[in-house]
Amino acid sequence: MFVIPLIQRKRDGGSLTGDEWRALVHAYARGDVPDYQMSALLMAVVCRGLEEHELAALTDAMCASGARLSFGPGVPPRIDKHSTGGVGDKVSLVLAPLAASIGIAVPMISGRGLGHTGGTLDKLLSIPGFRVDLSLDDARRQVERLGVAMLGQTEEIAPADRKLYALRDATGTVEAIPLMAASIMSKKLAEGLDGLVLDVKRGSGAFLPAVEDGLTLARTMVRLGEERHCPTVALVTAMDRPLGRSCGNALEVAEAIEALRGHGPQDLMEVVLQLGGEMALLAGLADDRPAARRRLEDAVASGAALEKLRAVVEAQGGDPLVLDEPGRLPRAPLIGEHLAPVAGHVAAVEPRVIGEAVVAMGGGRHVMEDPIDPAVGLVVRARPGDRVERGAVLAEIHARDERGMALARASLASAIAIGPEPPGAPLPLVSHRVTASGVEALA
Amino acid sequence: MFVIPLIQRKRDGGSLTGDEWRALVHAYARGDVPDYQMSALLMAVVCRGLEEHELAALTDAMCASGARLSFGPGVPPRIDKHSTGGVGDKVSLVLAPLAASIGIAVPMISGRGLGHTGGTLDKLLSIPGFRVDLSLDDARRQVERLGVAMLGQTEEIAPADRKLYALRDATGTVEAIPLMAASIMSKKLAEGLDGLVLDVKRGSGAFLPAVEDGLTLARTMVRLGEERHCPTVALVTAMDRPLGRSCGNALEVAEAIEALRGHGPQDLMEVVLQLGGEMALLAGLADDRPAARRRLEDAVASGAALEKLRAVVEAQGGDPLVLDEPGRLPRAPLIGEHLAPVAGHVAAVEPRVIGEAVVAMGGGRHVMEDPIDPAVGLVVRARPGDRVERGAVLAEIHARDERGMALARASLASAIAIGPEPPGAPLPLVSHRVTASGVEALA
Repeated sequence: MFVIPLIQRKRDGGSLTGDEWRALVHAYARGDVPDYQMSALLMAVVCRGLEEHELAALTDAMCASGARLSFGPGVPPRIDKHSTGGVGDKVSLVLAPLAASIGIAVPMISGRGLGHTGGTLDKLLSIPGFRVDLSLDDARRQVERLGVAMLGQTEEIAPADRKLYALRDATGTVEAIPLMAASIMSKKLAEGLDGLVLDVKRGSGAFLPAVEDGLTLARTMVRLGEERHCPTVALVTAMDRPLGRSCGNALEVAEAIEALRGHGPQDLMEVVLQLGGEMALLAGLADDRPAARRRLEDAVASGAALEKLRAVVEAQGGDPLVLDEPGRLPRAPLIGEHLAPVAGHVAAVEPRVIGEAVVAMGGGRHVMEDPIDPAVGLVVRARPGDRVERGAVLAEIHARDERGMALARASLASAIAIGPEPPGAPLPLVSHRVTASGVEALA
Repeated sequence: MFVIPLIQRKRDGGSLTGDEWRALVHAYARGDVPDYQMSALLMAVVCRGLEEHELAALTDAMCASGARLSFGPGVPPRIDKHSTGGVGDKVSLVLAPLAASIGIAVPMISGRGLGHTGGTLDKLLSIPGFRVDLSLDDARRQVERLGVAMLGQTEEIAPADRKLYALRDATGTVEAIPLMAASIMSKKLAEGLDGLVLDVKRGSGAFLPAVEDGLTLARTMVRLGEERHCPTVALVTAMDRPLGRSCGNALEVAEAIEALRGHGPQDLMEVVLQLGGEMALLAGLADDRPAARRRLEDAVASGAALEKLRAVVEAQGGDPLVLDEPGRLPRAPLIGEHLAPVAGHVAAVEPRVIGEAVVAMGGGRHVMEDPIDPAVGLVVRARPGDRVERGAVLAEIHARDERGMALARASLASAIAIGPEPPGAPLPLVSHRVTASGVEALA
C-alpha cells in the first residue's frame, strides 16, 4: 500500500476516501504499514481534523477489524455506559450491577488506567481472584445468564484500535476529538448494543477540560452511534474535583460496595442515578426519568444491586466475601492523614494532581508494562466550599512506604487549596444532555 | 529521553528549547528515539512551523552530528553552489569546474535524484568509472590540489540529517520550508565554506512552486548562513520549463560538456553565469558583476573550464575521453522522435511531467534501492513560445525498450501543450536576488 500520497493529502488539508481509510486500517492491523508512517498520518489528523465521512469510515474499519458480540432473541435490551475518564470515577463498579439488577443487560468492556485517570479494569483486579480476561463467548454466556459481564478489550475486539491506540499513546496523538470518538465508538459498537450512555467529563481533570471540546466530543460520538442504529445519549459531568472520596483501586472498590449498600457519597450517587436513568429509558424500562430513578433507588435499597455485584464477582473468579468484609481487599501498610495547614475555605481539590499522585504512589502506570499496586491511594475528605479549621483531616493517605507517604503529602498540599473566602460555585455535577436532537443544558 | 511531552508541545503550537532540539537530534542519530515518535514530531513541525531559535538549533545539531571539512591557510576562498532541485538542471556539472578554473575552491557535496528532479551524483555516475564516494580527507586533498571535488554526502557529513531525511521522504514531511532549510544548510555548513550561492527554483516544476514560498526558503537559508559566518546569496530562478534541453543522466553530462565547449543552451548558460558571478563576488575575485561574468566567459572560451572538468574526471576515476567523444557515455538502444501533432504555438513544457517520465523510463528512482539507467532520457527541443509546424520534432526520446518509448511518447504528449495563440511570457529566468540586506527583484 502506497501511503505517502495519503499522508501528504491529509497534511495539506484534504480528505481520504472511505475506501482509503478502510484499506489503511486493514493494512496497518496486518503490519503492512509501518508505525512511522501511521504516526505521521495521525499527527496530520490531529492538526487538520477528519471530515464526517472519514470519521465514519475509520470507526467502522476499526470495529470491523475484530469480532462483535451478538445475542440470542431472549436477551433483554443491551445498554452500556462509557466514561471519557476521571479521577475517583468508580461509576461503572456501581452502575453495571445496579442496571443489571433492574433488568438491563450490560456487556461492559472497560479499559485500564490512562494518564492521571483510573481504569475500571485495574479497580476490578484489586478484588482477589477477579478475572477480566473473558473471551467474547464467555462474556456473552455470562450476560445471558446474569445480565452483566465486566471485561477487558480482548484481542478479539477492534484489534486495529488496540494497535492504533498504543501508537497514539506513544506519539502525542491522543488528544484529538475525532480520534478519541472513533476509538471509543469502535469498541462500544462491537458490543452488540441496543443503546449507549456516555459520560463525557469536563473541567481541569478531564482529558478535554473545555466544555466546548467536551460537547464536540459528545455530539461526535452520539452522531456515530445513532448513524449505526445504536441510540446514544451523552451526559456532560464535572471533573473539576474528584468524584466521590476515594482515589486508588481497592479504595474505590470499597467505596463502590458502600454505595451499593446505600451509603455512597452524594455526588457519586447522583451521577450513577442520572446515567442509570438514561440507560433505563433507552431500555424501555421506565416511562420517564423520575420513574427510572425510583427503580434504581429501590434496587439499591432492596440489596438487589449488591447481590448482582456478588454474582458477578463469583462468576468471574473473585472472592465474594469482600462484599461483606472490605478488609479482605488489599490494604496498604502505611495509613496517614493530611491536615489543614490553616483555617479557611477549601477553594479547590485539583483532580489531576490527585490522580497523578496515586499513579506516582504505584496505583497507576507510567508505561503499559508497569505493575499496579492495588492497595495505595487517597481518600479525600475535603470538598471545594468546605469550611475547615486548622488541623482538620483533609485526606487519608494509604501508602506502600514512606516515600509514597511523603510524595502524597506534597501532592495533597498542592492539590487542596485553602483560601480566606468561600470560593465560587464548582461546576454543576451534570451540566448537559446530548442526544440526536441536540444539546440540552441541564444546569 | 522522554519525547512525548516535546511532541505534544509542538503539536499545540509551542516551541522546543535549543537544548531540547540538540538532545533530540543526538538521541535520534544514536537510535534512542524511535522513528514513529520522530515522524509524529516532524509532522507537527510541518503543521505548526519552527521558531527562529528552533531552526538554528536543529540546523546546528544536524551539522554537529558529523565531521566538517577544514582547509589549510593556503587554499583559495571556498564557495559552493546548491540548487533546490529542478528538471534538466545540470548547472553544477558546468559551474563547479568553471568556478574552479577562475580560482575559486569548490568542495561540492551533492545529492541523488529526488522525486521528479535529477541529482548531480546520478549524472556524474553516468561517466564510466567516475567515483563520488570520496572520503572527506580525499575531498580536502583534491580541493587543495585541483580546486574542486564533487562528492556525495558521506557517512561523515551530517549523519543525523541523512537519517531524518530518509524518514521525511517516507512520511510525507519533505515539503516544509524550515525542514528543507535546516537539511540543506546543515550539509553545506559542514563543507567549511567562505561563501554559499543558492539556486532556489520557482514554478510548476519546483518543490515549492509559489514564488512567495521560494523567497521564504531563500530568506531562511540566507539568514542561517549569515548567522553562522558564511556569507550567503540566493538567486530565485525559473522552473516552469526544463533548464536546457536534455533531461536524463548521460544526456545531461553530454550537454554540460557542450556548454563547457561554448555551445551550451542560452538559458542554461545564463543561469550558470549569474550563479558563477555571485560566487566570484563572494570570493573577492571580481569587483562587480560584469567583471565577474567576463572572467567566467573567458574561462569557457579559453578551454580552461573544460580542462578543469577533465582533471576532475581523471582524479575521481572516470574516463576523461568522454569529454572528447560523448559517444563513450552510456547510450540508449532506442532513439525516437516526438512530433508536433498540430501546428501552433508551444504553450507549455511541463517540467514535472518531463521529470516524472525520465524517472518512469528508468532514469530515476521510486525508492532508494532502485537502480538507475544512466542512458535513458529526453532531449526537449521545443520551448514555450516557439512557433511549430505539424510534424516538427518537439523532442528526442532515448529509451531502453519499447515500453519506455511508449511511456515517453504519452508523457511528452501531455507535457508539451500546443495552442493556436502565442502564450504569455514564461517566468523570468532569474527573478530575485536574496541577500542579508533583503530581496532585490531582478525582473
